[in-house]
Amino acid sequence: MSIKTEVEMKLKQQGNQSENRGRLLVKCPDKPGIVSMLSTFLLNHDSNIIESSQYSNDPEKGNFFIRMEFYCENLKEKSAQMESDFEEIATNHSMDYHFAYESERKRTAIFVSKEPHCLIELLWEWQNGDLDTDIVVVVSNHEDAREMVESLGIPFHYIPANKDIRKKVEEEQIRLMEEYSVDLLILARYMQILTPDFVNHFQHRIINIHHSFLPAFIGARPYERAYDRGVKLIGATSHYVTNDLDEGPIIEQDIERVDHRDDVIDLKKIGSRIERRVLAKAVKWHLENRIIVEGNKTIVFH
Amino acid sequence: MSIKTEVEMKLKQQGNQSENRGRLLVKCPDKPGIVSMLSTFLLNHDSNIIESSQYSNDPEKGNFFIRMEFYCENLKEKSAQMESDFEEIATNHSMDYHFAYESERKRTAIFVSKEPHCLIELLWEWQNGDLDTDIVVVVSNHEDAREMVESLGIPFHYIPANKDIRKKVEEEQIRLMEEYSVDLLILARYMQILTPDFVNHFQHRIINIHHSFLPAFIGARPYERAYDRGVKLIGATSHYVTNDLDEGPIIEQDIERVDHRDDVIDLKKIGSRIERRVLAKAVKWHLENRIIVEGNKTIVFH
Amino acid sequence: MSIKTEVEMKLKQQGNQSENRGRLLVKCPDKPGIVSMLSTFLLNHDSNIIESSQYSNDPEKGNFFIRMEFYCENLKEKSAQMESDFEEIATNHSMDYHFAYESERKRTAIFVSKEPHCLIELLWEWQNGDLDTDIVVVVSNHEDAREMVESLGIPFHYIPANKDIRKKVEEEQIRLMEEYSVDLLILARYMQILTPDFVNHFQHRIINIHHSFLPAFIGARPYERAYDRGVKLIGATSHYVTNDLDEGPIIEQDIERVDHRDDVIDLKKIGSRIERRVLAKAVKWHLENRIIVEGNKTIVFH
Amino acid sequence: MSIKTEVEMKLKQQGNQSENRGRLLVKCPDKPGIVSMLSTFLLNHDSNIIESSQYSNDPEKGNFFIRMEFYCENLKEKSAQMESDFEEIATNHSMDYHFAYESERKRTAIFVSKEPHCLIELLWEWQNGDLDTDIVVVVSNHEDAREMVESLGIPFHYIPANKDIRKKVEEEQIRLMEEYSVDLLILARYMQILTPDFVNHFQHRIINIHHSFLPAFIGARPYERAYDRGVKLIGATSHYVTNDLDEGPIIEQDIERVDHRDDVIDLKKIGSRIERRVLAKAVKWHLENRIIVEGNKTIVFH
Repeated sequence: MSIKTEVEMKLKQQGNQSENRGRLLVKCPDKPGIVSMLSTFLLNHDSNIIESSQYSNDPEKGNFFIRMEFYCENLKEKSAQMESDFEEIATNHSMDYHFAYESERKRTAIFVSKEPHCLIELLWEWQNGDLDTDIVVVVSNHEDAREMVESLGIPFHYIPANKDIRKKVEEEQIRLMEEYSVDLLILARYMQILTPDFVNHFQHRIINIHHSFLPAFIGARPYERAYDRGVKLIGATSHYVTNDLDEGPIIEQDIERVDHRDDVIDLKKIGSRIERRVLAKAVKWHLENRIIVEGNKTIVFH
Repeated sequence: MSIKTEVEMKLKQQGNQSENRGRLLVKCPDKPGIVSMLSTFLLNHDSNIIESSQYSNDPEKGNFFIRMEFYCENLKEKSAQMESDFEEIATNHSMDYHFAYESERKRTAIFVSKEPHCLIELLWEWQNGDLDTDIVVVVSNHEDAREMVESLGIPFHYIPANKDIRKKVEEEQIRLMEEYSVDLLILARYMQILTPDFVNHFQHRIINIHHSFLPAFIGARPYERAYDRGVKLIGATSHYVTNDLDEGPIIEQDIERVDHRDDVIDLKKIGSRIERRVLAKAVKWHLENRIIVEGNKTIVFH
Repeated sequence: MSIKTEVEMKLKQQGNQSENRGRLLVKCPDKPGIVSMLSTFLLNHDSNIIESSQYSNDPEKGNFFIRMEFYCENLKEKSAQMESDFEEIATNHSMDYHFAYESERKRTAIFVSKEPHCLIELLWEWQNGDLDTDIVVVVSNHEDAREMVESLGIPFHYIPANKDIRKKVEEEQIRLMEEYSVDLLILARYMQILTPDFVNHFQHRIINIHHSFLPAFIGARPYERAYDRGVKLIGATSHYVTNDLDEGPIIEQDIERVDHRDDVIDLKKIGSRIERRVLAKAVKWHLENRIIVEGNKTIVFH
Repeated sequence: MSIKTEVEMKLKQQGNQSENRGRLLVKCPDKPGIVSMLSTFLLNHDSNIIESSQYSNDPEKGNFFIRMEFYCENLKEKSAQMESDFEEIATNHSMDYHFAYESERKRTAIFVSKEPHCLIELLWEWQNGDLDTDIVVVVSNHEDAREMVESLGIPFHYIPANKDIRKKVEEEQIRLMEEYSVDLLILARYMQILTPDFVNHFQHRIINIHHSFLPAFIGARPYERAYDRGVKLIGATSHYVTNDLDEGPIIEQDIERVDHRDDVIDLKKIGSRIERRVLAKAVKWHLENRIIVEGNKTIVFH
């Protein structure tokens, strides 16, 4: 029996469970009683906590963060009331909060340039059932990936891009994102700079993979510079895109060992393996609502 | 400023906080409302939850596990009442539970034979403030470590041991453990087999380091056998000691890469580095009450 | 510029270099002067040593192993004479040896059952230029992979298999391997036992991926058993197939960390990522003639 | 039997072997025949090659590097003639070269400030037989480590230091290094800047441990800055000291995973574990003459 079959059987055994799973993310000023209040709220709304993670940052900032995953029979019919009832709590305790439902899969767009390895990895993980999302569109400034993408039944849009036509290109891209109702936008080695205007449309909803161990080798040509510096490890970083280039909140990083025998092409090959697994992890955690952005950092509830 | 000084300053800033910190560990049949009940209980006892981790194992077994770390002003004066009040909840919900207090440091004994590396690491982490315990006695069947141990003001007891005098030796060891009111017993490369009688005295309170990646190379001479098998990674495993040799619940494992050029002595040297860090981690987690044993497995709340 | 383009450009810059690259592997009793003799031999045959690695095992066994990679203009025209001249040296010094030429790419067959992840990884690395081989045929006891394989222009043969028809199946497989002149046979999660007769046809030319950190969990259902044992790391092992099941010379191993929250399906998913990279590395090293088998171990010259 | 005893027995079995072991390191313009020439030279001087590693950098720079470890009976009596005979070869082929002998142990000084962890690790590895050197003196601008150092019979010199008295301090340090005939100077978390004058006295003979994954967080307070940036991995880097601060040739780097729960003190603790193992590795490789510096990079022959 293949893993995929097993996953499908497992989901089936759970019946309509995944329809009945929700997640509540909360950020608020820290004080006693929050866990008690939230868990009692869920209990009173027929919801059983499956998983719960919390974090308080340092006493000065004094914020409390929690992610609760819960199960509730007939969640679809009850969620509106639940959210409505929650408003009062949220107001009273100055909470930023977010309800998410497994039954409402996020809609994802992937942007890619010539290097296909991150795209391939995402598609592979997605087919394997590891990325709980609908990949609704792939956008590229090259035609290379069209066949692979369309063979999976995913629309592929070729939009040539360079800095002279950036404004026009981004308008078309934003229009496309709206057309496809995109929730998450993944830059899977998309080698064009995005303007602040574009980024502001998708705050904390664009995930990029940077091909270095940030903050080392910020900017262009990181592998060439890693080679010149003679580092013994190379890495990759997935992060949310902000308007400070390569400075957005880091979600995940990883490295591999290299040595003096590895030339720049070797570094790129080794790096491509790091990139694809680092990006896939970050995307998975985002889709599972495991990430809260706080300032320029991420809290990732594993 | 050294790390040690910083740690001390940090603790000082927290005032008598560590005196006011407690941990509640609970295992019970899974059902809705437990988190709400426990968090409300703590709130009603003036306790603020600092950290909370939970886990439910598969539906068939249906058990729920939680570890809550809380802060309570004047905890020392309130803990008796708190524990007394908790009894009814525990009975009603078939809970196994355990209250632990940071102010009541566990008393630890270390057993060692000739190899000193794990002992040295533990003493180093302990001096560095990483192991929150009192190391009250070191027992060895060799004299080698006496000077190092006594120079730190720790009593050292030399008890020669071999299988012919095992019963007598263990009686003396048990007597010593009682004399020193030992809570945790660490086998830091102690190369004598313990009898069921001895082990039963300290259920889930003896931590051993096995010098292989269990279940590979169970038993004696693991590095020699790893060499003969030509493995490309060697490892170490820390586990609670049970009466099934090398079969107790695993707490932590780690590995390092080796290759054909490494002979048995090289493997032992590399292995000794793995052993010392794996054992130190397991001990740290035990002291912080992060481990719940369930059947032959551990739940480790990081 | 994509990595693939860069690799192609690099090869082009090297002109017909790869046609002119050869490798000499030698095993012989250890004694002074071998490096001098071999390097002088290559020099006298207009060959420049590009890379050289050597190893002497322990004094008792007293064997010397060396891998020399060399460059020789017009190697194709000179190799016959070179090999002929080498015979005398080899005889005089009791050498096992092997000349390999980059221009003569090995012909590879991949066997697969239902799990496609290792096959996909190999095809991906191959398309990316990382595996210097011709993949000449894929054989499976399931039809699942046919479309993907044939879309790359590789012949796909469906040969149903089970233990009752094993003899007949293996005869057909051997006939196919001969028809396609296969040099290397990769078991990419092929879940059928091979008989000694089959294995003997391809000594040290069948590479398997075992889904555990051997020798832990030898045999069937390693992930289930890893789950039951509560290990904190899971692994995979690539090895040459011998007639001792799961006991052949280990080429490469790797691991990833798991914890109590991972159920068997999680272990399989995590494991599938380990499997695909461990198998791809072993295959790459075999294709580059980096592996010498000595007894039940491998010497891998990185 | 302890590892240390085994190591001692192994060395004893090898008789006076270590007295008879030498290493030849060569850098020269790349051309055919060098390996043949060098190996024949050693053969003609009764020397058997035990280990040999080579590397050619890219065709443009065209340099060849080799490290040969050899065994020669009565090496002490023969080395002068061998070195004298080698001069002609070296001149003819524009070789930079270096003969090193195991019987002539390097003399090492360790500089340390308040943090003792790197010093402790080095002393521990040294006692364990892993660092083949004489540690002849420890210098510190604090008194903290005196007792530990002197208890091992190593002279300890307290030299207060700050930037106002830098010139005078360095004069005294240089005088001490000369008095103790120091070959290698290790900065084991010595927190004073060294002047170009001092550094020039010890070119490629000062090894520093920098508490970050260079080039990330060059300069002061790397852990604080790593915390502020929200990285998911922290690292350490050992490198030769040059007059470009934190820019010297990197010898070794490693990392460990951190997450949002780790505050600055946690990062320092985790970092101290990385620092000590990274520095110990770099020192070991230097002592075994495994490192050739080429421009601002190192070639490390493992």
